[in-house]
Amino acid sequence: MHDMSPHHPRYQSLLLRDKMAKAYQEGILADTALIAHGRGEAFDYILGEKTNLPALNSIKAASAALLLAENPILSVNGNTAVLAAEDMVKLARILPAKVEINLFYRTPQRVMKVEEVLKKAGATEILGKEEDDYFPIKGLEGPRSRAHPEGVHRADVILVPLEDGDRAEALVALGKTVITIDLNPLSRTAQTSSITIVDNVVRAIPLIIEEISKLRGCRIDELEAIVHEFDNQRNIDSSLQLIAQYLEKDGK
Amino acid sequence: MHDMSPHHPRYQSLLLRDKMAKAYQEGILADTALIAHGRGEAFDYILGEKTNLPALNSIKAASAALLLAENPILSVNGNTAVLAAEDMVKLARILPAKVEINLFYRTPQRVMKVEEVLKKAGATEILGKEEDDYFPIKGLEGPRSRAHPEGVHRADVILVPLEDGDRAEALVALGKTVITIDLNPLSRTAQTSSITIVDNVVRAIPLIIEEISKLRGCRIDELEAIVHEFDNQRNIDSSLQLIAQYLEKDGK
Repeated sequence: MHDMSPHHPRYQSLLLRDKMAKAYQEGILADTALIAHGRGEAFDYILGEKTNLPALNSIKAASAALLLAENPILSVNGNTAVLAAEDMVKLARILPAKVEINLFYRTPQRVMKVEEVLKKAGATEILGKEEDDYFPIKGLEGPRSRAHPEGVHRADVILVPLEDGDRAEALVALGKTVITIDLNPLSRTAQTSSITIVDNVVRAIPLIIEEISKLRGCRIDELEAIVHEFDNQRNIDSSLQLIAQYLEKDGK
Repeated sequence: MHDMSPHHPRYQSLLLRDKMAKAYQEGILADTALIAHGRGEAFDYILGEKTNLPALNSIKAASAALLLAENPILSVNGNTAVLAAEDMVKLARILPAKVEINLFYRTPQRVMKVEEVLKKAGATEILGKEEDDYFPIKGLEGPRSRAHPEGVHRADVILVPLEDGDRAEALVALGKTVITIDLNPLSRTAQTSSITIVDNVVRAIPLIIEEISKLRGCRIDELEAIVHEFDNQRNIDSSLQLIAQYLEKDGK
């Protein structure tokens, strides 16, 4: 949209930025979604815009947890839909898992737009549509509290990238295994979730898909060991160390 | 605009976020301005959302440079106008300095909107208006290259908060003393400018105003010594160290 050269050192990041700005203009995103994307850009920048070892650790644990789940749900908001709809739909198909739309600043118009994006990406069964039944998530109020009885409410494991802190806390309080993807290792979502992948959704979700096919042959006790041995807080701390090292080297 | 409690630990940051979203809806800002604000939010967060010692050092050097300037110019873009128009206008009055509108994604509509914001903040003389004369800045192309002959072109010292990297480089190449305010210590603007204030504009500009009244009584050689002794790269490195320490402590 704006003038951009593929030789720009941050071309990929600029492409995503324009994708987000365009989606906002199309009414898919709330205004604060662009600001949230900017926060992500900044953290991705100081992570070196690549998937680091701590992220790979959490991706492995997340993949094992998703394979072990009885009722896995992939919860999709506006930013996730814009950035990674195809990958989320693909992940839902291979697990298999249900896809549910959950918007923080929920409006009927935006729900329909996100539904459209997911359908275009190949989703066949989508929960959380405007006309769907719902129950509030305990501890939340207003439209953001909505969740589908057969989706988030029934789920044992929820992958919810780019989640809000209040909702992440409420889901964990309900006893769910919450897997999030969040570039800010200090965010409440990152700190609260069961498994936190500190990475960009556009890199992390394809890696989860890859990891799931690798782990497919594992026995249940092997998968359980992977989840059991994963220490989320220690892993987040490793991400923080990496950022600190990156900054101390002046980003070189 | 959105539900917010003044008891929220990040209330100030949320207020600014809403101010930006509202300004975007009013047509003052380009779409990528919101994303840029988000990047700033993230860096401010890991700076502890306060003005640190390295920022105070650069604020002192910037204030001395502005007092020594023969033709100081305050260059204002959309984000600066939305976040700090009153402070920029106050600073222009006390120095005195001229105010010039310089937008990166310049459109006649946005120039007029920013002019309106500055006038509402009390600005009497504004350069860079849509109907104004201009020459291109050497090394830049398109609307972003515009600068006023009596403003940026004639200036020896330019305060240009939240500047784009290409423009900061082009201004430094013209031999100008470029003072910037940028929360990302690794950005090209931060790394290129003569004096980089790694702080939030809403905190930094009032502090420049304060510092200028403190330094007002100094002799010219004293002011020159302040500027001469300031080492921008070393000061930026101190900011990076602080962020690294903050992250290593898990933000506690």
